[in-house]
Amino acid sequence: MEIVFLGTGAGVPAKERNVTSIAVQLVEERGATWLFDCGEATQHQILHTSIRPRRIEKIFITHLHGDHIFGLPGLLGSRSFQGGDSLLTIYGPKGIKEFIDVSLRVSSTHLRYPIEVVEIEEGLIFEDEQFSVRAAKLEHGITSYGYRIVEKDLPGTLLVDKLKVENVSPGPIFQRLKAGETVELEDGRKLDGKEFVGPPQKGRIITILGDTRECQNSITLSEDADLLVHEATFSGEEIELAHDYFHSTTKQAATIASKARVKSLILTHISSRYQRESSSQLLSEAKAIFENSYLAQDFMRYSLPRV
Amino acid sequence: MEIVFLGTGAGVPAKERNVTSIAVQLVEERGATWLFDCGEATQHQILHTSIRPRRIEKIFITHLHGDHIFGLPGLLGSRSFQGGDSLLTIYGPKGIKEFIDVSLRVSSTHLRYPIEVVEIEEGLIFEDEQFSVRAAKLEHGITSYGYRIVEKDLPGTLLVDKLKVENVSPGPIFQRLKAGETVELEDGRKLDGKEFVGPPQKGRIITILGDTRECQNSITLSEDADLLVHEATFSGEEIELAHDYFHSTTKQAATIASKARVKSLILTHISSRYQRESSSQLLSEAKAIFENSYLAQDFMRYSLPRV
Ligand SMILES: [Zn+2]
Ligand SMILES: [Zn+2]
Repeated sequence: MEIVFLGTGAGVPAKERNVTSIAVQLVEERGATWLFDCGEATQHQILHTSIRPRRIEKIFITHLHGDHIFGLPGLLGSRSFQGGDSLLTIYGPKGIKEFIDVSLRVSSTHLRYPIEVVEIEEGLIFEDEQFSVRAAKLEHGITSYGYRIVEKDLPGTLLVDKLKVENVSPGPIFQRLKAGETVELEDGRKLDGKEFVGPPQKGRIITILGDTRECQNSITLSEDADLLVHEATFSGEEIELAHDYFHSTTKQAATIASKARVKSLILTHISSRYQRESSSQLLSEAKAIFENSYLAQDFMRYSLPRV
Repeated sequence: MEIVFLGTGAGVPAKERNVTSIAVQLVEERGATWLFDCGEATQHQILHTSIRPRRIEKIFITHLHGDHIFGLPGLLGSRSFQGGDSLLTIYGPKGIKEFIDVSLRVSSTHLRYPIEVVEIEEGLIFEDEQFSVRAAKLEHGITSYGYRIVEKDLPGTLLVDKLKVENVSPGPIFQRLKAGETVELEDGRKLDGKEFVGPPQKGRIITILGDTRECQNSITLSEDADLLVHEATFSGEEIELAHDYFHSTTKQAATIASKARVKSLILTHISSRYQRESSSQLLSEAKAIFENSYLAQDFMRYSLPRV
């Protein structure tokens, strides 16, 4: 599980930071990439990474501001052009379907793969045997969602060494033991699978929030997450600006991370008023409140290995 | 008058060539820039030029394929964000208005300047004291227009030296002579303005065509143009591919240039199948038919000084 920041700026593209898009690469887990937001030129940014548009399985849109969606029609078209043929599911607030439908229809873009556009409400929006994704509303003037991605715990591994001691040879029995069954051997012994399986591996939790003021749902969505990605459009002292424009400061983001007891915090959606020189200041503002903070840069990768 | 190629690729963006947009800088002429097409990330390309989005006065869309329009909503928003307050007029085929309206509405983009969207038909689509712009349909499967931009002839300059010989001093009389009036001097002499004004300066003609097969309207639009910008999606031998996909080859573009007796031809909209190494081959195919040919590259500038 690896997070790639494709765009880390706010509002308008700048030379240093493109508008928002975040890729969650689930290559090991499911051979797929999930995208969170798709600002203009996201597909251009992708050209400089190892991400394959064909492998994008889901796109989650946090909110409909242009800097989060204007790259969507182009990316959909290119995914088709590059041979993508698998289902793509797009989740987002009400309105996303009209934007996609009209963009594709007016431009005569005929996709060679099926898409499903899900206009979401709060709550569980996706679940399979590996992951669940929940959404909750934030405070951004327009509807803006935060997403909590929870990986399900993996069953423990079979304790092969312990089985060797019991003189059990590999075979179909291993599968049944791993599934927790009680198995009778040819020599009459009965083995309880549960005694030969290690503890379950804890799934990881990532929370990716849309643009927002400091709010309670940000904490709820982030509780005990391994990683929280939170916007920090403004520096610590710009509390009024942040409030007026429905955004957050570095310090507010760090406060959320601290209250939610996350393991790591990455700040993104940085206003273009802050040049590269300001990066260390922005970061130290957050670190003063929540030590394990990082400041996103375009193309930054963050690995979240299974523990 | 200067042409800046912001994107010279076809269909999908590539590292070397972005999707289509062409800026005609009329800084001297009217302190403005006109844009022809606006593929995704046109505003990103503009960041690397001296073009100011605030100064974009008109945008002409040739056709509605995504690689020609998906940069429009973002550019409109950024023009507002960057303080643009003057009227922006957008010309394009039927459908462009719905795309703009829906994109701006869904994304809650509120422009701080007025826009006028003109869904054009063939014929004269704009005229003022400096320029006229005509449009005609090409052959691209969907409606695709070519534009012929004609600068009006400038009146000749006043022959000041000749007036000096006649002992006429500068003053309001000069204006009237320049306007061609016959003026009576205080000493009773009558001077005919027409004898003291040089020949009119010929206005320039630029033709910028949308994607198209080789067709008659391309010639009509380009006749005697100082510059023709023509797509050349495919190399000379790919006549069938070009025909099937409603595009042109290098040689077809050069043939149009030759038949229309233009002064210069610039080939653009080059398929990503052709890498940088192929450039000289593509160019020489065109040059064999029309010598004064150029192959566009992203950020190439082409000056068209007044003669
Ligand atoms: Zn934003
Ligand atoms: Zn095209």
